[in-house]
Amino acid sequence: MELTNIRDIFRNQKKFENQKITIGGWVRSNRNSKNFGFIVVNDGTFFEPIQVVYADGLENYAEIQKINVGAAIIVTGELVPTPESKQPFEIQAEKVEIEGASTPDYPLQKKRHTFEYLRTISHLRPRTNTFEAVFRVRSLCAYAIHKFFQERDFVYVHTPLITGSDCEGAGEMFQVTTMDLNNVPKTADGKVDYTQDFFGKPTNLTVSGQLNGETYAMAFKNIYTFGPTFRAENSNTTRHAAEFWMIEPEIAFADLEDDMILAESMLKYVINYVLENAPEEMAFFNNFVDKGLLDRLHNVVNNDFARVTYTEAVEILSKHNDKFDYKVSWGCDLQTEHERYLTEQIYKRPVFVTDYPKEIKAFYMKMNEDGKTVAAVDCLVPGIGEIIGGSQREDDYDKLLERINELGLKEEDYKFYLDLRKYGSARHAGFGLGFERCVMYLTGMGNIRDVIPFPRTVNNCEL
Amino acid sequence: MELTNIRDIFRNQKKFENQKITIGGWVRSNRNSKNFGFIVVNDGTFFEPIQVVYADGLENYAEIQKINVGAAIIVTGELVPTPESKQPFEIQAEKVEIEGASTPDYPLQKKRHTFEYLRTISHLRPRTNTFEAVFRVRSLCAYAIHKFFQERDFVYVHTPLITGSDCEGAGEMFQVTTMDLNNVPKTADGKVDYTQDFFGKPTNLTVSGQLNGETYAMAFKNIYTFGPTFRAENSNTTRHAAEFWMIEPEIAFADLEDDMILAESMLKYVINYVLENAPEEMAFFNNFVDKGLLDRLHNVVNNDFARVTYTEAVEILSKHNDKFDYKVSWGCDLQTEHERYLTEQIYKRPVFVTDYPKEIKAFYMKMNEDGKTVAAVDCLVPGIGEIIGGSQREDDYDKLLERINELGLKEEDYKFYLDLRKYGSARHAGFGLGFERCVMYLTGMGNIRDVIPFPRTVNNCEL
Repeated sequence: MELTNIRDIFRNQKKFENQKITIGGWVRSNRNSKNFGFIVVNDGTFFEPIQVVYADGLENYAEIQKINVGAAIIVTGELVPTPESKQPFEIQAEKVEIEGASTPDYPLQKKRHTFEYLRTISHLRPRTNTFEAVFRVRSLCAYAIHKFFQERDFVYVHTPLITGSDCEGAGEMFQVTTMDLNNVPKTADGKVDYTQDFFGKPTNLTVSGQLNGETYAMAFKNIYTFGPTFRAENSNTTRHAAEFWMIEPEIAFADLEDDMILAESMLKYVINYVLENAPEEMAFFNNFVDKGLLDRLHNVVNNDFARVTYTEAVEILSKHNDKFDYKVSWGCDLQTEHERYLTEQIYKRPVFVTDYPKEIKAFYMKMNEDGKTVAAVDCLVPGIGEIIGGSQREDDYDKLLERINELGLKEEDYKFYLDLRKYGSARHAGFGLGFERCVMYLTGMGNIRDVIPFPRTVNNCEL
Repeated sequence: MELTNIRDIFRNQKKFENQKITIGGWVRSNRNSKNFGFIVVNDGTFFEPIQVVYADGLENYAEIQKINVGAAIIVTGELVPTPESKQPFEIQAEKVEIEGASTPDYPLQKKRHTFEYLRTISHLRPRTNTFEAVFRVRSLCAYAIHKFFQERDFVYVHTPLITGSDCEGAGEMFQVTTMDLNNVPKTADGKVDYTQDFFGKPTNLTVSGQLNGETYAMAFKNIYTFGPTFRAENSNTTRHAAEFWMIEPEIAFADLEDDMILAESMLKYVINYVLENAPEEMAFFNNFVDKGLLDRLHNVVNNDFARVTYTEAVEILSKHNDKFDYKVSWGCDLQTEHERYLTEQIYKRPVFVTDYPKEIKAFYMKMNEDGKTVAAVDCLVPGIGEIIGGSQREDDYDKLLERINELGLKEEDYKFYLDLRKYGSARHAGFGLGFERCVMYLTGMGNIRDVIPFPRTVNNCEL
């Protein structure tokens, strides 16, 4: 069908002015008097809807008057500028066809609904202003990330979802199996007989693509992953989901400094892209979801990120220990309250915290010369806390093997990973960005369930 | 580190000519005589490597002479044009630093390896010419798909991976569970007690995001998904993997004709993008992997796709039944041999086959007026057969419900899906493109295991 997108009309008003056009979309409201009426139509391509004026000259006027909210209609008419009104133009309908009716029990009548209620109708909520805005920004944000890396010749690597190893030990994992759970095959000694499973061994859903990603960084120099990851953690918070998307770039011939430069450029690029390409949505969030949002984002884009070592940060924070539920001392992991205090109160902008104690960080991080800290970095942003975690990786075969043994990991599980340090090892670094946390940051939405189309959390796997 | 990518040198030769530059990369070969030597270096940013000349004036000359294949080095020197040679320029080294050594047992010595062998070292194979080319093209192909849809204002929707329903019935599914398989919790009547599982019910890995995608098309008009899908099919072929990526656009206010226009534009766009952005890789595939590749792709880009109904196709094919293992007759599903015959022998270009018997297609496809066929479409391409399968969706509530009941599906599982036909139903259509099949088509690679970084197939889940 030859329909004009409402986005194109708003973006190229002059082109369509006083022209006959046809649009298709869904009715947001319909009010009328005896001789004429107004239908507000949204076609999902643009945040703003368009107003259609219809008059009793239309042969199906009586039918049009009765169109319910939510109905799909196709409207043909002239686009007429309305400089005196709030909206820049309207369509004077010559024809209004009902593509699909709606009913008075349509759950999204023109009144405000709570986010909680809208979560129960996840198949309909993208038709509301808030969720239309959230999911368009989510889409633009994903594209901005691809664009950023592709423009810099990074290779996009699809790391596997189903994995045979719990390499990072980053969290509880979901098992993947084709065995009959009513009758799990057992070996002679009563254990699960995984030789009868699909892959012939126990398999899980991945918690991170990083180790696989590193193997490709050692071939392509600069790579990124962007795919789903999973955590089977029994935690019911506004920030955790069982299924979420992660971006994990990995750069070779690069150290922690390069890693921070990359992370800062990427965040700024993504924010700028969304501000430029979804100004209406961002203004809406700023007005109705999170009052300080635009100021905060502009502040991020226009300032250099601060830098502080973990040791310095602990020194600073411990002076304010009276403000914290968990008191800070060297060696402790920073909690969200500490992270937010640092970025919001101390620096008032994003800050990189580097060089954490090795005990609270993963085995693969490069040991610093002090023997106590590793070349790790967390990026903290106002309103959220940690948004990015990264590190330079241990590139020395012997040191890496020592860490693997120290932590009681199985050397044979890491043979491929050790190989990277045996054949042409190069200093390299990378980071992980939780995609949903990024979308929350950009939109000001406070609950991860509201930035994922169909969220998965404990006891919740609807649609 | 301030390194120049080899890609930039090849793409902007003039800018770097006679300048001092520093590159980092991995040694592909090292040969030398008493007074000078040549190292061929690839940094993964470009298909072609660069030649480094080093002379005995360098203080670590003896060490450089012994550098093994696979080592990581950092080279500083002048980029000197060599118009008389095969390569356009070389680097005359002033400094060669060994970033990470390699050993003589490095598995990728400068000789040809079989794809079978390289599959056993999936962490190293992207360092070979073939796999460097495959995985760069894979990355570009993914980006081209995003670019195509985003330029047309389609919204990218992340449909869920873990799902509570086997909606499409498209294939065997993997179960996802956190229950202890050694000791599966049982209810009083001896069945699996899923209330004790993470989601409180049985869950699987998705086989398609389409139904979820449709809910978003009814809000945004034009959407696409691009994510992993899973099939637990016990089939060991060159075309099937247990984990693969799919693209599923869905367009509202659109019929089967619009669907075909979209599919054809998308395929042509992606092919053009890869031909333009990876000419060296594509020439390599054409020379060493699949002789007719470039001709075939140019042929696709420059011609309209053919159109034929299933009924007409069966009529044509049945005249050639002597050539087929499976004889064709109306009602049968087309096999790869038939599909390839149609596209390669009859049309000699891609062809859309439309309007299949309802019995061999999914429940959600729109019934045609004949009551026997549905508005389905498969796109067949030379060398592969089916690359895209799509349909217009049944948008009539009663007809859809009738099909659901006819096929014995559970109505309550499809309540959300029926809602879309109750509240503002609009004609809509979509298709699925198997991403790996697309990459195989673009590269001429014959085995799906060779276009996935870490492939998952029956009894194979390495790294």
